[in-house]
Amino acid sequence: MTVPLELPKAIDLSHHLNSIARNRYASPLKDILNYMAQPGMISLAGGLPHPSLFPFAGASVSVYTPDTDLKHGVVPPASEQMTLAIPKTAPSKGALSLDATMQYANSMGLPELREWLHAFTRDVLSPAYANFEILLHEGNTAAWAKVCRLLLDRGDYVLLEEFSFPSAMGPWVPEGCKGVPVKMDGQGLRADDLERVLTEWETAHPGERRPRVLYTVPQGANPTGTTMSPERMRDVYDVCRRFDVIVCEDAPYHALSFRPFQITPEPVDPVGVSGEEFRRTLPPSFLKYDTEGRVIRLETFSKTLAPGSRLGYFVANPLFTERLLRATEVESQTPSGWSMAIVSQLLHTWGQAGYLQWLSNLRDSYELRRNIMCAALAKQFVALPAEQYASQVPGCEGVALYPRGTDPATIKPDQVPVASFVAPAGGMFLWIRFYLTGAPRFRELQASGHEDPEKAFMDDMWKALADNLVLLTPGSYYVPVTTTFDAATSKLPTTSERGGEPNVGFFRFAFSYGDRAEMEEGIHRVEQVVSKLWGY
Amino acid sequence: MTVPLELPKAIDLSHHLNSIARNRYASPLKDILNYMAQPGMISLAGGLPHPSLFPFAGASVSVYTPDTDLKHGVVPPASEQMTLAIPKTAPSKGALSLDATMQYANSMGLPELREWLHAFTRDVLSPAYANFEILLHEGNTAAWAKVCRLLLDRGDYVLLEEFSFPSAMGPWVPEGCKGVPVKMDGQGLRADDLERVLTEWETAHPGERRPRVLYTVPQGANPTGTTMSPERMRDVYDVCRRFDVIVCEDAPYHALSFRPFQITPEPVDPVGVSGEEFRRTLPPSFLKYDTEGRVIRLETFSKTLAPGSRLGYFVANPLFTERLLRATEVESQTPSGWSMAIVSQLLHTWGQAGYLQWLSNLRDSYELRRNIMCAALAKQFVALPAEQYASQVPGCEGVALYPRGTDPATIKPDQVPVASFVAPAGGMFLWIRFYLTGAPRFRELQASGHEDPEKAFMDDMWKALADNLVLLTPGSYYVPVTTTFDAATSKLPTTSERGGEPNVGFFRFAFSYGDRAEMEEGIHRVEQVVSKLWGY
Repeated sequence: MTVPLELPKAIDLSHHLNSIARNRYASPLKDILNYMAQPGMISLAGGLPHPSLFPFAGASVSVYTPDTDLKHGVVPPASEQMTLAIPKTAPSKGALSLDATMQYANSMGLPELREWLHAFTRDVLSPAYANFEILLHEGNTAAWAKVCRLLLDRGDYVLLEEFSFPSAMGPWVPEGCKGVPVKMDGQGLRADDLERVLTEWETAHPGERRPRVLYTVPQGANPTGTTMSPERMRDVYDVCRRFDVIVCEDAPYHALSFRPFQITPEPVDPVGVSGEEFRRTLPPSFLKYDTEGRVIRLETFSKTLAPGSRLGYFVANPLFTERLLRATEVESQTPSGWSMAIVSQLLHTWGQAGYLQWLSNLRDSYELRRNIMCAALAKQFVALPAEQYASQVPGCEGVALYPRGTDPATIKPDQVPVASFVAPAGGMFLWIRFYLTGAPRFRELQASGHEDPEKAFMDDMWKALADNLVLLTPGSYYVPVTTTFDAATSKLPTTSERGGEPNVGFFRFAFSYGDRAEMEEGIHRVEQVVSKLWGY
Repeated sequence: MTVPLELPKAIDLSHHLNSIARNRYASPLKDILNYMAQPGMISLAGGLPHPSLFPFAGASVSVYTPDTDLKHGVVPPASEQMTLAIPKTAPSKGALSLDATMQYANSMGLPELREWLHAFTRDVLSPAYANFEILLHEGNTAAWAKVCRLLLDRGDYVLLEEFSFPSAMGPWVPEGCKGVPVKMDGQGLRADDLERVLTEWETAHPGERRPRVLYTVPQGANPTGTTMSPERMRDVYDVCRRFDVIVCEDAPYHALSFRPFQITPEPVDPVGVSGEEFRRTLPPSFLKYDTEGRVIRLETFSKTLAPGSRLGYFVANPLFTERLLRATEVESQTPSGWSMAIVSQLLHTWGQAGYLQWLSNLRDSYELRRNIMCAALAKQFVALPAEQYASQVPGCEGVALYPRGTDPATIKPDQVPVASFVAPAGGMFLWIRFYLTGAPRFRELQASGHEDPEKAFMDDMWKALADNLVLLTPGSYYVPVTTTFDAATSKLPTTSERGGEPNVGFFRFAFSYGDRAEMEEGIHRVEQVVSKLWGY
């Protein structure tokens, strides 16, 4: 765990801890651990069950080799699989055993796994400060809830993307906190808008505490599929530094970072690269710019190995990991010993190069899925570069979709397409922006003075899609809760009340699960509904 | 999951939910699940990773048979082990597979495990209301923290045993809640003292909300090793019902409920019984008396299988499980898929009768350990029935320990012994009460006007024991936090300030881990220190 000596240490950020975090204390029982190590000591102090009474006598897990081609959904034959064995007792000192991993354990998490991840973080993400630490957790859902309970006080505001994963609001909304949406573009969160929000805070919210926490998904954001450029990340970090904001970087999709996209009628099959090339071309983490230790990175194995592992890790400064550890001791103890043991064995068996190769192949697999969905859209609509064809349509970036049969030569630069999207540079989701003024029913709703024509039209469209046997996720699900929420009475604000963009609506299309035939048929069904609603 | 029709349903206890629990809401994404089941539906809505991308191709776990004799710490030979296999894909519809258990899943927990546990709870614990539910959790530490966040508001008081597990205070102390200790006797929590506390509440705490939550470990309590009789449980439940208190029953040691203890020079080897006899003679759960659904039972596999499983379950009324589910969705999602799959396979493979046989044998093993430790004490001290020999010593119950060489015939009924203990009827701990007035150093401390001579003496004694290479856990660790706690400044109250019993001190002795030789040598070392400090 050596780090270059020249890196700075994290600065003191203790003023960010909330009152709960400050008042946590170590269990007095832990003091005893210091004495346990004395030679000849007999401890009648601990409350550990005896491991001879655990019924588990050994475990073995068959796993893929790290160079398995994942693009075709084929399970490799048994002869090409590896076996992870976890014996009941350790064959040598320090080796993994069920007796140890099934026992109560230090809440930091399995030491050999933490060490592996520390080296991986250092080698792959290059944090810009020296004393970052690794603390295991039970997946990013649990991790973000722990961060909320570390930093947020009742009534606080949380900075987040203007479309954000609803479960990420779940921990703080019932606590009386409120979201502050930051505007996005094709690269995700906009640094200039973040700066605007923070600069105008005192004027816009007199007497209310300025937000001190930014929750962001920099790569393959859910739902928008956006990925920040390195420059954008540096700018966002800089604003956070200047306004003393803690950056909570939720990074489930980081490894699923794709190469650039081109409109093609047939999906491009991505060319595999070595783990080392993958590492070199992986987008940065906020940690790379984090000279002060103000980034809390939430890493998970949910997307890179399997969600059922319920295992991930924090990368954060020692002050934060220590306080998170105190919470973990009394709120969850440790992640599952099964999960820690199996993932640790897997990573040690594969090695860093192997894991990078696995991630590279996994990325290819999702990149192919992205390409399949985008090609399906290009087949059902006329797909053209927005820059070239819709340059005067506000907010239209990436690929513009026009009705089937449209002659590109006739398109005027201010002509509103049916929809547009920025091809995701990572993750599992395509976020499609529909331009509603082309739909007669939307214009009717507007003309009738409906209080939220965008939402009403998109609700109708969602039902029409479901009736045509294709399910999408409505964009409205991802609108941050910006007001004090009362589950018994609360009504969410309308599109105009929340300052949402007029005349547009969004759906999230997931390309993570369906196979090629399903995605193509699904997009076909979407086009059927669109052509009916848009009347072409 | 049939239940006798004549049982009542849980009453409405919604007024017990705190503001956070009331304001939790279901994720909008869950709505979509209802549509997924339609035939022919193509879903591009979910965000699930594709299971072909999970690297786990199969798992197998060797386990003991349920009738393994656990008293001798011997791993059964491989030929006597069973194998739990979890294939990547399900061999038949509904069968367990890694593809399913490694995927995101319903936060209630693995359905086949919940069903098994529902039937087990019904058959073994016989709840007195019809519509109890099972919700899986990540072990009782996590479960109790979730209950705190379900019921407690800032500043609330929590009823608990006068000696209670410190980690159980960890979730609510930093939230500004306070403990209300209820006096104990050899059977644990006293119903009459619980009633006194609640009756006198308005007088003793004018303007403060009466406690509405009781946290209790009815069997094999930590640290006191006490177990409530059925009558005691009925009386405690009755007080809770009359004062509208929710009973949180933390039940990790329930299955480790021992048969009566007799003082013998050699440890008694418990006679094994069938799983069915074990079931019939198991002490009741509070659920047995719970006609209203006001008991939240925390069950865990930490002591019955292994702590590293980080798996357990709530038994509670549907209102509470629904609100706990909403919290679980945004705070942890599910327990580890590995843990759920392996434990579920184990229980389904063993069957209910098998699991009961396992628990019966496990109980025998811990009962033997209790007997070993008690016999070691009887060997190092003169151990006599307190009822007979110390009948006039206040608070002296169970077994009284006198200095080596004491002639029983010379003992007067008001003669203070060195120590006494109630032989635990369950669990992992022996709680020994030391009578400090026999120790010259204690009398010195008292005479010198020390502000807390009990604590000072016990601290010294702990250090003397550690110097003599035996570790015990100080009784002071288990004193509830009864004042608003500030980690930066707080000083815990002295024995007299908190109304603690004068002239006595406690140590917790764990018999769960050491082997016979260690326990006997450990107790010998304790006696060496005692004889020095007591000057005999």
